[in-house]
Amino acid sequence: MKQNIYDNNTFFEKYQEIRARENNYNNLLEQPNFSALIPTLKNKVIMDIGCGMGDFAAYCISQGAKQVTGIDISSNMITNAKKRHIHEGLTFEQAAIEDMTVPNGTIDLVSSSLVFHYIADFQLLIKKISTVLCEDGILLFSLEHPIVTANKGKENWITNEEGDLLHFAVDNYQNEGLRTQNWLVDHVMMYHRTMSTILNTLIENGLQIEKILEPIPTKEAVCNLPSLHKEFRRPSFLIIRAKKCKN
Amino acid sequence: MKQNIYDNNTFFEKYQEIRARENNYNNLLEQPNFSALIPTLKNKVIMDIGCGMGDFAAYCISQGAKQVTGIDISSNMITNAKKRHIHEGLTFEQAAIEDMTVPNGTIDLVSSSLVFHYIADFQLLIKKISTVLCEDGILLFSLEHPIVTANKGKENWITNEEGDLLHFAVDNYQNEGLRTQNWLVDHVMMYHRTMSTILNTLIENGLQIEKILEPIPTKEAVCNLPSLHKEFRRPSFLIIRAKKCKN
Repeated sequence: MKQNIYDNNTFFEKYQEIRARENNYNNLLEQPNFSALIPTLKNKVIMDIGCGMGDFAAYCISQGAKQVTGIDISSNMITNAKKRHIHEGLTFEQAAIEDMTVPNGTIDLVSSSLVFHYIADFQLLIKKISTVLCEDGILLFSLEHPIVTANKGKENWITNEEGDLLHFAVDNYQNEGLRTQNWLVDHVMMYHRTMSTILNTLIENGLQIEKILEPIPTKEAVCNLPSLHKEFRRPSFLIIRAKKCKN
Repeated sequence: MKQNIYDNNTFFEKYQEIRARENNYNNLLEQPNFSALIPTLKNKVIMDIGCGMGDFAAYCISQGAKQVTGIDISSNMITNAKKRHIHEGLTFEQAAIEDMTVPNGTIDLVSSSLVFHYIADFQLLIKKISTVLCEDGILLFSLEHPIVTANKGKENWITNEEGDLLHFAVDNYQNEGLRTQNWLVDHVMMYHRTMSTILNTLIENGLQIEKILEPIPTKEAVCNLPSLHKEFRRPSFLIIRAKKCKN
């Protein structure tokens, strides 16, 4: 099932509003930690899955990447990306990852920021990525943490009568699959997978785990966005870097 | 800090009572999943950390292992192990893992079942294990899951007024370190570490992750011990197999 929520115009407008704010979870927490794991980009061939408005793809070009392909299922995103970033090494394509056609063993880096939890068939996704990566090629991706996706769609921060946060509720952890939530619009679909499923799928597809991050905000970030203090109580994101092994 | 809780006689007696029951979490959940990841034992040199009463060490001998050393900090455990299992390939030593002296690169398998969450210095522990493992040697261990250890010592299963389980409470996830709980006796010390700390420590010490399990009970196990149904709602255990990489 290929969800194309970013072509829902109400969703897309609200999403643009959030991303335009400097102080959001992406800018203050996910992006700095994701960036810390980016390998050398010079002369590399890169595919960015769920490229959105193309800013990361353009960043890779600015760091000397040879060729960057950004793919996204949303025509809203691809239209914006093509307007924002023009360079001979940059290509943007509207496509679902499930349908991508790329020669095997040709990509040095597959990157993807906060997209994989929207994809129904994780096994197929990782198999495809492993196939297109060259030997020693890198997969770097972030997604919502299994602790958070387990019981997604329910009220997870439990408060007392005064409204103080008591703890974060985990449930249904081993029941993998579809979750729906109301985020910006109703019924956004996402998929919960356990930590072991995520990691074993990488390993079984020839990807060796190099680093795992469960990001913690800096003091400065918490000053700018106080709700980030909750990140010390349970992790929102998971960032994984893995390397394609020699056969 | 080396905790020697199994030489607290009250604790040890209660522990023996639990382990003597066929239907417990170890026998029905942790052990079958741990066993599924055991490599070939024939002609192998093995060290079992926290060997307890020596049953796993003796099992390794029965499977053709060449030499098995069981170490445990508890003299109660070692005394029992020596009584229960006598074989020329078997050695039991009372020692803390922090103090073990074994020639580098000589062990084919280091195993440890539900012990590592009692050890204060995880970095040192893994460094020592990596040093004694031979090339392609295996570390197989289980420990309490970070989802469970995060807020250990607090009431984690939240119930309504009728006593129904509502969810499992997670908190303090990023605050690693000492937790105390009352299990069999008061103030048992254990250590919480995040998933990323556990996995990155292995990787940084040259151990490649091969498989991760967050065990789910079989239907039969839940019939025998109904409280195991909670395992579908949050995982109790984490089992990891890792391989010493070539330098």
